[in-house]
Formats: sequence, C-alpha cells, structure tokens
Amino acid sequence: MGNTFGKMFRVTTFGESHNLAIGVIVDGCPAGLRLCEADIQKELDRRKPAQSSITTQRKEKDRVRILSGVFNGVTLGTPISMIVYNEDVNSKPYEEIKFKPRPNHADLSYYLKFGIYDYRGGGRASGRETLARVAAGAIAKKLLKERFGTIIVGHTIKIGKISAKKVNFEEIVKNAERNPVRCADLESAKLMEEEILKVKREGDSIGGIVEIVAVNVPAGLGEPVFDKLDADIAKAMMSIGAVKGVEIGLGFEFSEKRGSEINDEFYIENNSIKTYTNNSGGILGGISNGMPIVVRIAVKPTPSIAKEQRTVDLLRGKNVKIKITGRHDPCIVPRIVPVAEAMLALVLADHARRSGLIKDKL
Amino acid sequence: MGNTFGKMFRVTTFGESHNLAIGVIVDGCPAGLRLCEADIQKELDRRKPAQSSITTQRKEKDRVRILSGVFNGVTLGTPISMIVYNEDVNSKPYEEIKFKPRPNHADLSYYLKFGIYDYRGGGRASGRETLARVAAGAIAKKLLKERFGTIIVGHTIKIGKISAKKVNFEEIVKNAERNPVRCADLESAKLMEEEILKVKREGDSIGGIVEIVAVNVPAGLGEPVFDKLDADIAKAMMSIGAVKGVEIGLGFEFSEKRGSEINDEFYIENNSIKTYTNNSGGILGGISNGMPIVVRIAVKPTPSIAKEQRTVDLLRGKNVKIKITGRHDPCIVPRIVPVAEAMLALVLADHARRSGLIKDKL
Amino acid sequence: MGNTFGKMFRVTTFGESHNLAIGVIVDGCPAGLRLCEADIQKELDRRKPAQSSITTQRKEKDRVRILSGVFNGVTLGTPISMIVYNEDVNSKPYEEIKFKPRPNHADLSYYLKFGIYDYRGGGRASGRETLARVAAGAIAKKLLKERFGTIIVGHTIKIGKISAKKVNFEEIVKNAERNPVRCADLESAKLMEEEILKVKREGDSIGGIVEIVAVNVPAGLGEPVFDKLDADIAKAMMSIGAVKGVEIGLGFEFSEKRGSEINDEFYIENNSIKTYTNNSGGILGGISNGMPIVVRIAVKPTPSIAKEQRTVDLLRGKNVKIKITGRHDPCIVPRIVPVAEAMLALVLADHARRSGLIKDKL
Amino acid sequence: MGNTFGKMFRVTTFGESHNLAIGVIVDGCPAGLRLCEADIQKELDRRKPAQSSITTQRKEKDRVRILSGVFNGVTLGTPISMIVYNEDVNSKPYEEIKFKPRPNHADLSYYLKFGIYDYRGGGRASGRETLARVAAGAIAKKLLKERFGTIIVGHTIKIGKISAKKVNFEEIVKNAERNPVRCADLESAKLMEEEILKVKREGDSIGGIVEIVAVNVPAGLGEPVFDKLDADIAKAMMSIGAVKGVEIGLGFEFSEKRGSEINDEFYIENNSIKTYTNNSGGILGGISNGMPIVVRIAVKPTPSIAKEQRTVDLLRGKNVKIKITGRHDPCIVPRIVPVAEAMLALVLADHARRSGLIKDKL
Repeated sequence: MGNTFGKMFRVTTFGESHNLAIGVIVDGCPAGLRLCEADIQKELDRRKPAQSSITTQRKEKDRVRILSGVFNGVTLGTPISMIVYNEDVNSKPYEEIKFKPRPNHADLSYYLKFGIYDYRGGGRASGRETLARVAAGAIAKKLLKERFGTIIVGHTIKIGKISAKKVNFEEIVKNAERNPVRCADLESAKLMEEEILKVKREGDSIGGIVEIVAVNVPAGLGEPVFDKLDADIAKAMMSIGAVKGVEIGLGFEFSEKRGSEINDEFYIENNSIKTYTNNSGGILGGISNGMPIVVRIAVKPTPSIAKEQRTVDLLRGKNVKIKITGRHDPCIVPRIVPVAEAMLALVLADHARRSGLIKDKL
Repeated sequence: MGNTFGKMFRVTTFGESHNLAIGVIVDGCPAGLRLCEADIQKELDRRKPAQSSITTQRKEKDRVRILSGVFNGVTLGTPISMIVYNEDVNSKPYEEIKFKPRPNHADLSYYLKFGIYDYRGGGRASGRETLARVAAGAIAKKLLKERFGTIIVGHTIKIGKISAKKVNFEEIVKNAERNPVRCADLESAKLMEEEILKVKREGDSIGGIVEIVAVNVPAGLGEPVFDKLDADIAKAMMSIGAVKGVEIGLGFEFSEKRGSEINDEFYIENNSIKTYTNNSGGILGGISNGMPIVVRIAVKPTPSIAKEQRTVDLLRGKNVKIKITGRHDPCIVPRIVPVAEAMLALVLADHARRSGLIKDKL
Repeated sequence: MGNTFGKMFRVTTFGESHNLAIGVIVDGCPAGLRLCEADIQKELDRRKPAQSSITTQRKEKDRVRILSGVFNGVTLGTPISMIVYNEDVNSKPYEEIKFKPRPNHADLSYYLKFGIYDYRGGGRASGRETLARVAAGAIAKKLLKERFGTIIVGHTIKIGKISAKKVNFEEIVKNAERNPVRCADLESAKLMEEEILKVKREGDSIGGIVEIVAVNVPAGLGEPVFDKLDADIAKAMMSIGAVKGVEIGLGFEFSEKRGSEINDEFYIENNSIKTYTNNSGGILGGISNGMPIVVRIAVKPTPSIAKEQRTVDLLRGKNVKIKITGRHDPCIVPRIVPVAEAMLALVLADHARRSGLIKDKL
Repeated sequence: MGNTFGKMFRVTTFGESHNLAIGVIVDGCPAGLRLCEADIQKELDRRKPAQSSITTQRKEKDRVRILSGVFNGVTLGTPISMIVYNEDVNSKPYEEIKFKPRPNHADLSYYLKFGIYDYRGGGRASGRETLARVAAGAIAKKLLKERFGTIIVGHTIKIGKISAKKVNFEEIVKNAERNPVRCADLESAKLMEEEILKVKREGDSIGGIVEIVAVNVPAGLGEPVFDKLDADIAKAMMSIGAVKGVEIGLGFEFSEKRGSEINDEFYIENNSIKTYTNNSGGILGGISNGMPIVVRIAVKPTPSIAKEQRTVDLLRGKNVKIKITGRHDPCIVPRIVPVAEAMLALVLADHARRSGLIKDKL
C-alpha cells in the first residue's frame, strides 16, 4: 500500500529500480486536456541524470510512453497510464552488499517490514521512482496552467553551508534552469557547483535546501482541519525520499518572531484582496488565499558514499563493514527540484478537483 | 471535507468554537481495550487553557463524554464518539470584527472558499478544534502503550530567541510537565515564561518550537512511496493550525551536512539491530526502524494581538483597521505540546493497523 | 472501521442501540444550503416506529439536534453533526439471551470478529442505526432538490407473496405515504397490511421488496469501472441490515431477455437525448443518462421472532434453545423505505460532488 | 476517477479496448507470496474469447507480463503491475457508428459526462477491461488459498429461460469448467449452449444468471454498517459492466419468506459454530460467519446486436438508425464467470487485510 497519492486527482506509481519498468497511472485528470508524450518527456528530461558532472553518470534515457487515457491527442477522463522501461541497469555492485543494509538507506526497514527486499539499486525505495512522480506532475502542471495560469518553479537555495541570496520570482524563472545546480542566484550557483565537485572527489555527499513557488494559485484550495493545503503539501514533500523537513512561508523562522512582526495585513487592489507581506506563504487556515505559495524543503546528503561504513549481515547476524560502489549522485538537491515541483502540482490539482474548480471535463 | 484523518484508525472531528459542541469519532480502534472517560479527560486537562498566567483566561471546563463504542468499560470495535459541549462562550468581541477578516487568521480564506464563515471565535478554524484531536489521541496513546509499550512525549525547545539546551529522554519525561511552558530544561523554562509574560504585557504574541519523541515504536510502520511514516507525520503536524514547519531527525540541519557525518551506521545488540546515532529520527525509507522517532515543529505567533491592524471590510469592499479584543493566548506553543503528541499517536496507531500489527481485537 | 460512506459527500455514523446516543457527521455538504432541524426531523419521523399497528410499539421520540456545521440557518461547509439520544431503552429482554446469539442476527459474527458484542438491542448492528442514515439523507435530499430538482421516492412493491401492481411515478408520490405499508397500489396495500398483522399474531415475521425511484437526476454521475453509479447504489442498499438483494432497471428479469427486447433506443426531444424505454434504470456504463433511476431491494424477514429457536451458549460451548421476547417489527419493509431513499440520496450527492456539479459552495 | 477498488488490497486498472494496453496495479499484496506469470495467465485464459463457438471470434492472445512487485518469484510487498498489450484490434466497424451512440452501451453517458469518448470497441467501458480484474483476482485467489484454503468457484445457473438444477459444491468444481457455458448441471449446459447458438444465428443476444460460491472463508471479514462484506460484494459485482442485479444467500427469494422458515439456527460441531441451513449465504450483520459465501448476479444480454436500432447523431443532433457490425458475444454470461470469481476474491482479500488476518508479510 501507500503507492497512491491524492483523492480526486489520483496518482498511483509502481516499479523497482532494477525491475522491468517504472510507471504511473493518473486517475482523475479531466477530459479535454490536450496531451502528448512530449509534454511529459520535457519534464522527465529535467530530472534525468548524467546531464552534468555533478550528477550520477548513469545513462538513463527514460523515454516515456502513454498507454491509455489519451485519444487523438486529448485526454478522455479515463486513467492515463505512462511507462518507462528500465535500461542501463547494472545490478552487479549490489550483489556484494546483498543482505548488508546500507546505512541511511531503506534496505533495513524494508527488510524488517516485508521480510524481503529488492537489494538492487534500492528497489522500490530508489530515487528512480521519482520519475513516475515527475511524469504525473507534468500533467498536473499543464492542467493548472491551462485552467488557472498557475506557474510552479523550484530552485536550489542552499548546498551545504552555501546559501543563495534572495531573488525575486522573475529571476527564479529566468536563472534556475541555466545552471546545473538549479540555483537562481548565479554567483552562489558557481560556488555550489564547486562544493559538490569537491565533495564528490572526496567520496562523500552533501545536502541542501530547495524552495518551490507557485503563482496564480486560485484562492479556496485546501480543506478545513486535516486536509489543509499546507498539510497535504507537507506530506507530498516529505514523501520524497531524501526530504526530511518542510516549511511553508516563514516556516521555522516564525518561531523567533512576534505576531506584530509577521501578521500579513490585508488590502484591496483591483477588487481583489491581497496581503502587504506573504509570510504565511499563500495559505491561511489551511486554505489558499491567492497569494504565491512558498515551500522550502530540507534535503539530506545522499546516503551512498564511497567511504567504508559499519553495518550488519542479516543472514549471519553479525556486525560487518561495507564499501558502496556503483554510480551515485554526490548531491541529489538539483535533481529534486523537478520532483518537488511535480509534488506541489499534484497537491494543487487534487484540491482543485476536490473544490469543484476543476470538473469532469475542462 | 477534510475532517477525517487516518485510513484504518480513522478520526473524524466536528464542531465550531462557538457552536454547540466539539466532538470526534474514532473508527478503527480494536475491540478489547479498557477505556473510560478519565483516560480522555486526563489528556484534555493538559490542553485546557487558564491553567497558568501565560495562557488565555477563558474558563473552559471541557468535560468529555463518551457516547458510544464502549460497553462495560471495554471498547467494542465500533465507533467511539466523544463530545464536549462548548461553555464560557463569549461571542460579543467578534461582532465588531464581523466581515473584517483578522490578519493571519483563517477568516478570509474560509470566506473565499465557502462564501460564508462563522466569525465567532474562529469558527471551525479555532484552536479549540484541537481538543477533539487530543481526545482521539488519548485513545491512540493508550492503545500503543498497551500493545507495544510506546511512550510519546512532547516538550517546548524554543520560545522566541530562547532555546532550551538538549536534554535526554528521561529528563523530558520528568521535567516537561513540571512548568507551564512545558520545557524540560528548567532554567530555560523560567526565561521562556518571562518572555511570554513580557510579550503578553505588550499586547503581542510569540512563536516557538516543539519537539515530540516516541520510544518503543515497533519497526515496520509506514508504507513505501507516498504514505511514508514521515510523510504522514508531516501532514499530521502541519494540519495543526499554528504549525508552519516540520522536520524529522536532523531535519533542516541535514542541509549543511555531509553523508559521512550523518549516516546512521548499524550494529547488532541482543539480537536486535540498532543504529549508533539516530540522525534519521527513527525512520528510514519512510518506515520505522525501531529507534526513537523524533519530530520538531515550528509554531507561529498567535495571530490575535491587541495592536491595531489593517484589513478589509468584506461587505463594503474597502480598507479598514481593526483592534482584536477578547482573551487570547500570547503564546500557543505550550498548549500545542499535547496536540502534537496526539497527532503522532494517531499516525502510529493508523500505521500499526495498516501493517496488521494491530488487528480487529486486542 | 466501515462506518463512513462516500468520498466527497461523506457520512460517518456512530452509536449502539442501547448506548447513550446515535449520531452522524456529514462532511462535504457545500456551504450556503438553508438547513434547520425540522428539515431532518421530518424524515426521521417517517422512519420512527409505533406509528401504526404493524410496526414495533417502542416509543422512540428520536428528536434530532444539529450540533455544528450550520450558522444562522445556513450550512458553513464544515461538518454537520447531528445527534439523537437513546430513550425508551429496555435492555432487560436481552439479559436472558446474553451470549446466546440470535439466529440471523449479527450477534455471532460480531462476537467472532471482535471477541465482544453489545448484546442489548443489537448494539451497533441494530436497525436503530439507520436513523443516522435518514438524518444524513435528509440533507442530501434537500441539496439535490435545490440544486437539480431531483425527487427521490420509495414504495413497497411486495410483502410475502403479495405483489403490488405497477403504478406510475405520480401515483407513487401521491399514494405511498398514505398507508402504513407504504404501498402505492392502495388495494394491495390493504392486503399487505392484513398479511403483516396475521404474521405478527403468529409470532412470526415476513420479508418484501422496496422500489426506489429518482427523477431529475443530472446526466454524468458515476465513474468508469469500479465506482459506477449502480455499483455504489448496490453497496449503499446492501449496507442496510435487512437487505439481501439489489437490482437496477430490469435487474434479474434481464436474465430471461434478449438484447433486441431490452435495448433502450435513443431519440432527441427538445434538444435533449432520451430513451424510448428505461430498462437500464437510468444508468449506462455506470453513468447516469438523465432518465429516472430505478432500484429494487429485497428485504429479508425480521430475524427476531417469538418462536423458540436453536442456538449455542458461547460461554458454556453447548447447544441451547432461546425464545426472543421484547418488541419487534413483524415486517421491516415499510420502515426501510425512508432508509433506502436516504441511501440513494447519499450516493447521488456524493457523485455530484465528485463530478464537480456540486462545489464547495452552492 | 473510480478506477481503484479496495482499501488495503487495492487494485487500479487502466486501458481502453483499442488503445495500446490494458493493465492493472495491485497494491497491498503481502510480501512473501510465490507468484509467476503462469499463475495469472491461467485465469486470463479462462476469460479469453474464441474458445468455443458461443463466444466472439476475436483472437485475443492476452499474454500478461508482470512488470514490478515480484523478485525471484516472490512478491515484495510493493505494487505488482501487470500489462497486456492490445492485439487483433480492428477499429474499422466503429468508424461508421462514431458519434452515433449504441443503445444500452456506455457511449452516450460517457459523452454526456466527459464531452468525448473513445468510440472504438467501447473504449474504457469495453468488456475487455475485465481482463485487468481477472489478472488482479488471480493474485487474490492465490493469496486466499494459501493463507486460508479458500476456494472460489462460479458457474452459470440460468441462460434465458433455461435454469440449471441445483447441484452441490463438489459438482460445481467438477463440472462447471467442462462445458463452454460453465454450467455445472451438464444436461442444462447442453440446452443453454443450443439456446445461445440459436440466438446468435438470429443476430440477437441473451442474458443469464451466474452464481459464485466461496468456501473456507475465515469468519470475521466485513465491517459494521457501511463496509459490510455483502455491501462490498454487491458493489464489486455491480461494477462488472453487464451485471444489473446482485443477491446474497436466498436474496430476492427472502421477500416471500417468513422468519421462521429462513432463520439459520446455530449448533456446535468440533468446537466450531455452524448453521443448519445457510440462507444468509455466509454473511450475518455484514460479517462472514465461516459458512460458504453464496452470491448470484443477473447478467443482461450483450447490447451489441446485429439488428437495426434507433439512435441519435450527436454531431448533427438528429434521430438516426444504426446497424452494429463487428464480432460480439451473443451471450456474455460464461465469460463473466471468471470475472465474478475475481471480484469476490478481491473483496475477500481486501477485508482480510483490513481485519489484520493478512499482514504486511505472509
């Protein structure tokens, strides 16, 4: 269980890293949306590894195929299924560490839960699973853009101890995709890239922070009490493997503030209600208020490092040491950007359906 | 919608702050658990206001009544419904600000979504709703304790700029409830209390951070991909009104770390697998590994402050100013502690049912 | 679990027959619907026993109270909770048969599942639980009527071997509520009433068939594949305790027919597409087509009869005999009519929300 | 939406009849079940057309491929995805009737709901979708058999006016698969086959009734109130395209009976509680009692007949006539048998997980 996200715009993913395929079913996309494989591929290509020296050198083509739900280039309102066959799979490095769970990986907890796990490439817990999210998110993004003009962009704002300086939305849109780190502050981007290469040379890995912003989000998304928009966003983000923290608006900074400093006061402009500041990140009482939604997520360092580590041998029941080989990302932060965008799009599309703003047909 | 939490241990709450009652239905509690109103009341009393000078002086007795699901002091496996009638309700302060949404409150976004809102005491978005969560959480806590020996405790670790020093689990258990701030570092507790009283005198409010720890959590809770244990915890926490950030284990601190610094290495002790460190907060790949679960949440300052604020008049469509009167918490952090404990208990109980570790009957 | 119905117009019920109260939470009713307790009471009174000599003589006042979700006579979009306290409860007759499960009742299977059951008045499995459905259904009915002009009526078409003759929709509306059997063919109604009284005198019980018809149902309700409108109707109906069969349109009669006899051919009238016949009962491919929805349900005889019956003593583990005393309906069919109407209304309201035809606000 | 069935043993299907593929994801199958493609193929082959003269002569090979969730021949606890590519697809006959909805088919209601429909071979509403159910059901069947010894068999008991005589469980197991009609009464089987061939020659179609029986079902499956086992069975069955009626145990026959005639009395045998009769079909109060589960479903005649029929031209908005060509089943009843078995298996597996009788691992 646990492989479905959303209530009305529902996404179900499947596939292990070194099994035959990774795929996803999107159920609840309204009929009448123009959609083709290029719409999906474009986003998948942003997530693909081996695009620069700072990511893993695995060559995954990740060609997506739409198997159902689209007819004559238009969605039918039926499940859209998409599939990517696994290629360039090399399971050999995993044979040596079979039944020796890698620290900070899911190996051990899967074993404790299921009594079995696919040790090849992380199996179901592989970061490769996120391509299914990106494929589904591509549809949600397109739907939101066509229906509301919503634009969702993510960018890296921290790598290790290097923080990007604050930039405005236009700069994020313009600059984030122009460098391999996906940092909109181009000066910091350079430093971050160097830091990642240094960490890579040392056989280590490093964490960071990604910020995702959505503009032109309709007001009224989110439900009272448990299915608050920020609650669902928090779940969506924390469901990404390497993410260990989520904050909305000022987030943890709120803890140091006084009410008089951070309350977003209201005013009317062109018959619409706005706030002078946006400390609450576009969400009040769990419901969007029309201001930009701002989310930040903490990404932990990739667990697969070249250094020797202590672990246990599950079969023999004794302490052992392992060295992880294979091709791994020294820093997963830049590749998480499109995944986080996709997850935000999925939450927004789901709530747009739930509120009735998106119906059975466009 | 959105008023139900959980898939198998399901909690549905209802009630507005100044309407007749607040209540909750717990569906999915196994049969055979000894349960009485005192079990619930004990937790509700921890959340109750007016227990010290740093909380609101509203006198809410909050007597809970179990209406169903329990027979001869034992749960039946049928829905347990609990109700608390609203008393000491004073709606007068709200008449003046009717249709003038309070900054940082849910008023405006409810209005945008529903075209109507109960302006008295926050209506459905009132913090008072959390008593329903605490009542439900009391059952989940008891169930987890009886079935697995799980203990869940929360404590305040930051108020404004005052941070508590790190203490161990025993000290949290011993000290957190011994002071009104619920801070386990008793020295900082004193400073925090003074800070809150100062803020109160100035007609302002202040935020903080709460940490929640659960020990003796069975391994194997949580589902792959979307319903990861940490994802559901993130949702649960972020669904608490004032919470704007959630982190697991090292959380945002991960962003500055290298893999070699933070990977939790494994070893065997007494036939069970442990980690030397617990940076991942007891959860790997979204599944509990048996180590303590550690969560921290960022709490924003209470929006209701005495200072004059700018807002809009929804009926007349023009900019106005308001002053919020009434009795409000200058700092909601200490009262959020039992709520956050409750939410963590609900997530764990739900996943214990989903995994089959808890069945139809105890 | 299992006490919630619907995905977007969600109903959660609670309460055992002889515990403190029966109640229901309706989550997902849009904001802006005028609603008061009289709207609910009107429907509850139709279900109430002791209204004629053919039903149980228990005097249940069943006064409903709305505890939340309505403000100034208008729904808020938040959960509407309704409660009825249990009165005229006499648990004495059940003491004698404690741990001696009554044949055809839920006693034994609850015991097998939960290891415990509330033996007083059927506990959670009591027919009394249906008042919560009727209360929720009253809201759904009102919503559907105001939004689409939908009218839902039920009537008894068979009691034992007495079948009513076919009447048209107007006659059902006019006659069904004018006799205690709720049969729209007034001649058969008389015979049915006599049959029930005869069965009652003999300490026995009898079954029957109810038909429910909904007109002015918008086209497009229902989802492909599993959540077909007729599938959800079947579930809704079969979830009523005494119901053991459900059919749509011609139903079981289809089994004897040829395609050429029963295909509903299309034609255009006033720019809208209709069918010459309505053998499919208003649903094609699981989706409403705008024609009247026609459902029939088989109701088994009330299990509680005065005659001696064989059962087992659960504590002593041996075969015994019991005689059930207390006040029971000799025929539950007429009282099921408003319950079945309620369930159909719940299904339609849920699918109207799911399709986006009903939104967050009216 | 609507393409997912089950809460804990969850099945999501996708695919249109003439699009690229039909497939299914099974989420919630415990880890540790031995599973290979032959387990699935065996059941798919029972559903396949063109196996005798009484079914359509389309040659669908329907080779299934497992893409994920199985590793070294054992389930992982992760989603099992299965795919069948569409072959022998001939869309030409559908071009002529494009935008002229076929009576009794889903064409029109899909058009009304979505504003578009895939007119080729019924699109998503095609009977071909049921192969995904059979594939998923094959896993559920295997799981139930290994875990509880549950056996599920279906057989045809009526075609048109020809009713099979009642046979016992052993005869069903022995005879049902030995004739193309799947009727366990071999004499009636002959007559049914002749009837179907006659109907076929006349360019017409015919309906029937299927009975499904499950033995060795554990007691305690099903949830109180809405998610009763019979309610979920009713939904499961009615979600099969051609099914328009469902009954449990005596079903509609109950309507003519008295309580004293049909109450299933209890007795103890070998420390287990049984009933002398099984009129309630193994389910009491919505929960299985350990006796065989007995379900019957009414199947309508195939809508596609050779005779000319009246319909409308959606583009031109006028009444027209059509003749459906192509290869169609004159009677779908025999091919529904494996589908109905699959659906029953899915319901039982889901409830076994929900009750905790089946856990994360076998």
